[in-house]
Amino acid sequence: MSFNTFGKFFRFTTWGESHGPAIGCIIDGCPPNIQIKAEDIQKELNKRKPGQSKFVTQRKERDLVHIMSGVFEGKTTGTPISLIIYNEDQKSRDYETIKYKFRPGHADYTYFMKYGIRDFRGGGRQSARETAARVAAGAVARKVLENKIGKKYKVVGAVTQIGILGSNPNNWDEKFIGKNSFFCPDKRILKLWEKYLLAIRKSGSSCGAVIEVRAKGVPVGLGAPIYSKLDMDIASAMMSINAVKGVNIGSGMNSAKLTGEENSDEIFKRGKKTIFKTNNSGGILGGISTGQDIVVSFAVKPTSSILKERKTIDKKGKNTSISVKGRHDPCVGIRAVPIGEAMMHCVLLDHYLMNKAQCGN
Amino acid sequence: MSFNTFGKFFRFTTWGESHGPAIGCIIDGCPPNIQIKAEDIQKELNKRKPGQSKFVTQRKERDLVHIMSGVFEGKTTGTPISLIIYNEDQKSRDYETIKYKFRPGHADYTYFMKYGIRDFRGGGRQSARETAARVAAGAVARKVLENKIGKKYKVVGAVTQIGILGSNPNNWDEKFIGKNSFFCPDKRILKLWEKYLLAIRKSGSSCGAVIEVRAKGVPVGLGAPIYSKLDMDIASAMMSINAVKGVNIGSGMNSAKLTGEENSDEIFKRGKKTIFKTNNSGGILGGISTGQDIVVSFAVKPTSSILKERKTIDKKGKNTSISVKGRHDPCVGIRAVPIGEAMMHCVLLDHYLMNKAQCGN
Amino acid sequence: MSFNTFGKFFRFTTWGESHGPAIGCIIDGCPPNIQIKAEDIQKELNKRKPGQSKFVTQRKERDLVHIMSGVFEGKTTGTPISLIIYNEDQKSRDYETIKYKFRPGHADYTYFMKYGIRDFRGGGRQSARETAARVAAGAVARKVLENKIGKKYKVVGAVTQIGILGSNPNNWDEKFIGKNSFFCPDKRILKLWEKYLLAIRKSGSSCGAVIEVRAKGVPVGLGAPIYSKLDMDIASAMMSINAVKGVNIGSGMNSAKLTGEENSDEIFKRGKKTIFKTNNSGGILGGISTGQDIVVSFAVKPTSSILKERKTIDKKGKNTSISVKGRHDPCVGIRAVPIGEAMMHCVLLDHYLMNKAQCGN
Amino acid sequence: MSFNTFGKFFRFTTWGESHGPAIGCIIDGCPPNIQIKAEDIQKELNKRKPGQSKFVTQRKERDLVHIMSGVFEGKTTGTPISLIIYNEDQKSRDYETIKYKFRPGHADYTYFMKYGIRDFRGGGRQSARETAARVAAGAVARKVLENKIGKKYKVVGAVTQIGILGSNPNNWDEKFIGKNSFFCPDKRILKLWEKYLLAIRKSGSSCGAVIEVRAKGVPVGLGAPIYSKLDMDIASAMMSINAVKGVNIGSGMNSAKLTGEENSDEIFKRGKKTIFKTNNSGGILGGISTGQDIVVSFAVKPTSSILKERKTIDKKGKNTSISVKGRHDPCVGIRAVPIGEAMMHCVLLDHYLMNKAQCGN
Repeated sequence: MSFNTFGKFFRFTTWGESHGPAIGCIIDGCPPNIQIKAEDIQKELNKRKPGQSKFVTQRKERDLVHIMSGVFEGKTTGTPISLIIYNEDQKSRDYETIKYKFRPGHADYTYFMKYGIRDFRGGGRQSARETAARVAAGAVARKVLENKIGKKYKVVGAVTQIGILGSNPNNWDEKFIGKNSFFCPDKRILKLWEKYLLAIRKSGSSCGAVIEVRAKGVPVGLGAPIYSKLDMDIASAMMSINAVKGVNIGSGMNSAKLTGEENSDEIFKRGKKTIFKTNNSGGILGGISTGQDIVVSFAVKPTSSILKERKTIDKKGKNTSISVKGRHDPCVGIRAVPIGEAMMHCVLLDHYLMNKAQCGN
Repeated sequence: MSFNTFGKFFRFTTWGESHGPAIGCIIDGCPPNIQIKAEDIQKELNKRKPGQSKFVTQRKERDLVHIMSGVFEGKTTGTPISLIIYNEDQKSRDYETIKYKFRPGHADYTYFMKYGIRDFRGGGRQSARETAARVAAGAVARKVLENKIGKKYKVVGAVTQIGILGSNPNNWDEKFIGKNSFFCPDKRILKLWEKYLLAIRKSGSSCGAVIEVRAKGVPVGLGAPIYSKLDMDIASAMMSINAVKGVNIGSGMNSAKLTGEENSDEIFKRGKKTIFKTNNSGGILGGISTGQDIVVSFAVKPTSSILKERKTIDKKGKNTSISVKGRHDPCVGIRAVPIGEAMMHCVLLDHYLMNKAQCGN
Repeated sequence: MSFNTFGKFFRFTTWGESHGPAIGCIIDGCPPNIQIKAEDIQKELNKRKPGQSKFVTQRKERDLVHIMSGVFEGKTTGTPISLIIYNEDQKSRDYETIKYKFRPGHADYTYFMKYGIRDFRGGGRQSARETAARVAAGAVARKVLENKIGKKYKVVGAVTQIGILGSNPNNWDEKFIGKNSFFCPDKRILKLWEKYLLAIRKSGSSCGAVIEVRAKGVPVGLGAPIYSKLDMDIASAMMSINAVKGVNIGSGMNSAKLTGEENSDEIFKRGKKTIFKTNNSGGILGGISTGQDIVVSFAVKPTSSILKERKTIDKKGKNTSISVKGRHDPCVGIRAVPIGEAMMHCVLLDHYLMNKAQCGN
Repeated sequence: MSFNTFGKFFRFTTWGESHGPAIGCIIDGCPPNIQIKAEDIQKELNKRKPGQSKFVTQRKERDLVHIMSGVFEGKTTGTPISLIIYNEDQKSRDYETIKYKFRPGHADYTYFMKYGIRDFRGGGRQSARETAARVAAGAVARKVLENKIGKKYKVVGAVTQIGILGSNPNNWDEKFIGKNSFFCPDKRILKLWEKYLLAIRKSGSSCGAVIEVRAKGVPVGLGAPIYSKLDMDIASAMMSINAVKGVNIGSGMNSAKLTGEENSDEIFKRGKKTIFKTNNSGGILGGISTGQDIVVSFAVKPTSSILKERKTIDKKGKNTSISVKGRHDPCVGIRAVPIGEAMMHCVLLDHYLMNKAQCGN
């Protein structure tokens, strides 16, 4: 049972609401003697932080992380690592609108129906603010994997589609990703995306996105069939991110359209290395990593908080309508990139440790 | 930790290899006093059984289920339910080919690299034969939910795409699904699919498919954010099915292309009922069921066992090639329908019970 | 897997080291709409707090608890409850002694051997300071059970033996327990215990104790055989408390000496009530509560930090000796009473919720 | 959540009722490439088997184990190991007595109250017959640990007390244990025990026992504080055995009577070896193994099925009485020895694998 815990061996538990005093997470199962500094975590948090460009929310949160336990003299001790981020931008906003009305596309209605109570301030627990806590956990997982596997281990995320505008996979330029506010890997599409998104925002609307995350240097053998398959856990991890509605591994949904000979990746030996001609499998066969890049993509639905007026009901069950003002991302998908990377680190470390225990590899 | 166990509260653990003496599963956490007969389970198994049409493998397995424990005088007792299906069609086949060579698209290579040993007979544990055990578990979950929720609860699966040929959602005819060997909901596409698949098979190739599973009558409030969200568990469940590479909830990957006002489902009250104008959310918001139909679709990659010759390597690391003969499904996706339904039953019951405990609803 | 998490459904995860900035816990799986105030938790923490009599350590910690999440407008919301207690008495003590030497009877040696690193300040994670976090969790569990079961539900702990001096079970006076610094239920033994313990302390030594915890008003039917038996979880809970070495349920170890007719509790019906003539079972049969009082007792070994010089080794493996100065409890068992009560609340709530889910009772 | 599953990483799930067609278990998380034969398991089962001396029940069960999966060509494959034992001695006995009456000391009443239904034939799931399944699991764990640690790893169980008659620890003769029907380690007490138990049986009564289990060659560092402490899991494991009411680690309950200097085990270095002067800790400090012998003892209550008439109630709530005839052990504790050994193997392997994953030792 794990309502607010993710992972099986390397486990993190997040807590906190959007407008409570703080959010945080506890990491359990982290190996000892790994060097970790607050800055290692802060670096990843800064990628997710709001207010960094005109394409994301203008809310201001420094998202400063504090290591409260589990690290001694700069090294993990094997005991739980508690990370806290105090909430700073809790300005007394007018919540009256969402206090009594359920925003369409949000979880207002379902939280209220499930729990019979709901912290309505900024969405409370359902807010994407929670994802800061897991980005912090992912930063720790990354440090452990870099220590165990070495520098060949690397996870790279990017936005590959904004609304109806896809990028060209052949133009994938890894270095470019970090140099633009869209995590866009394709230089040629960037300008178009900017124009498109500004237009969307001006119209008081929003749009969806597709994010791709690739993990390199992952050893063969991670993943525990039948019910801890690596792709199960990656799919689950990505689906846990707010607003994600679809997940593909490798060729994903597109694999339905392929024939057997188009889809199955041929295998070769080159020297001592095993080479696959293609990577339709996304680096996973039978739920176990092949040694190729792990490739996952997922769709983030358009931001549900929009200016355009929408029909809805209030707490008393009366029909009404709502228009959500405030500082919202026109495309929440953009900020999902570091979150997807963090979840990938966590899933891979989880399986790395489990495989160590079971198979000793 | 749950390598071969699925679920958190209602849990099933499967065991067995394709050509061992039997396969089976243990169900734990099943409520007591639910009427269940072997026939209830057999009925679901028969839907998955091979050899039922020329479009699936001609292997013969009666897949007779035996209830070994947990049911007394026709009712569950609350203790573990052990189900066994003895393997019958273990004819001494020529496994020499796959004994030393890794079949591309299969998990031969990854199992061997992970475990350093592999039961090569018919794929061993990696065989889709394992799915019979979970179809059995799903039949039990179904009985429990029908008992608890009543007859309005219903799960329907169908094939919505074969290779490049999609069905028309507007032609969805639920009654037609059970009357054709494709679980096809669209009368008008059926003939085309038959021709297409026969051509694929004749050419020694195979194709993929998309399956959709809908659950009706699911109460609002199931799903436990943040890390036991209903869509996480459904995505994980479907991804656990052999050959599945992509999962969509509601609008899924397509939601990336929508605007906020196209995507978010408006809410209305009609009498005492809450009505949603659309169901892009697939019945899930914030990881919690909305009371609408739960809608999931997933892609099954083309069968990897094909006659066409493919490059691969052998156990000693030498380059070679392989052509897989034998009784294989030209489109394994078809038989994934009852498996997807079974996984849906199991996930929903799991969350039904968890919600009972936490929220008392 | 649950290194620092206790419980299956109602779960708490503790974190923090003796001399880090804070300790705390996250509670997950708590039902919504339960009234809970910081004072409810503080009240229990105050029972465990050091410095309250001359018989316990004179360390000063106010142990003020802060509710960081999961409670909104005075009620639980069903989301994780984060509780923090900042450490106050971190005075710069001389840790040089224990930095390089392993204290006999403590976990210094085993932590170092396991993790290869150790936060030596005040014992770090191995310190009994961690128990404050679970006392806080227990206070929340208590509130939930009082809400669900009503006021007949009550847990009472007491010290029944100090060193070689047992109390008389026939003199058990529940009201007296809260009125003395020993949690002693037997008025007549108290003076003797005081003299005995003062003598022990003066001699630079320490002594052990036996604690008994009784839970009243527990409904019949809690406990999930075979491997979540109520007595398994209670034994595990009590054994998790620092320095506990033995656990008895009901007649416990003494039951070995009884005959079948002395031991098995005869059953009667009195009106609608089921009555047991005796309670050798401690309220548990087959791992399930009988409806009688749940009775558990456990032994706490003598404080290992003593003035008397003891042989030991240092980190380099050289033979040496140690005498531990400082503010230590001469009998740590006394402060184990509120901890045992807290663990009992947590185990019972865990099973209460699980039973709700499985059996609906 | 793990109603019928024991363990965290090396997990076994048992199923089956006393008079159903079979009992069995599924082992998950077993490392691959371990040699295991049915005979390895049978050997341990034979130690537990009924009908082997006049001091145990005369029921006849061959308890033949069948390996149904997870072993290929004599070696584990890393996939689930399914073990089945068919029930043979299901003779049509007169269950009318226990069908309507609740046997005092048994779980008849609690199972019925919890589940609202109960398989009354021979106790159904509550029968100690279930323990055969875990003895089988323990045999597999033993093989793995012998493979990983080597022959210095050894677990020895013995009966140290029968009713009021304790054995002398100074007379502990390990070789003698296997040569008598009592698993008695003390040659000098054996005759007395025989006379005592025959007298008990003749009188239609029964008696309890104390069992001690020692594990040798256990590496330092096993056990995961705070809530997967080695002693927590051992206590829980032993408490899961039918009729166990108390568990001691090392000095156990007796440690309450000791002073700090009597109790804490002094540490020495002899060459490269760490030596402890005494072993009051039972080989565990802070929940982590010290490298000394792990020593646990537990009390088994007297058999509740006795000829002497006892007061009880029936299903309708009427007062009545019962005298249980049939083939019952006068002291069930004796057959608990191989069960205790099996549970010890399972707990140790579980922690061995977890420690591998977390700390790499």
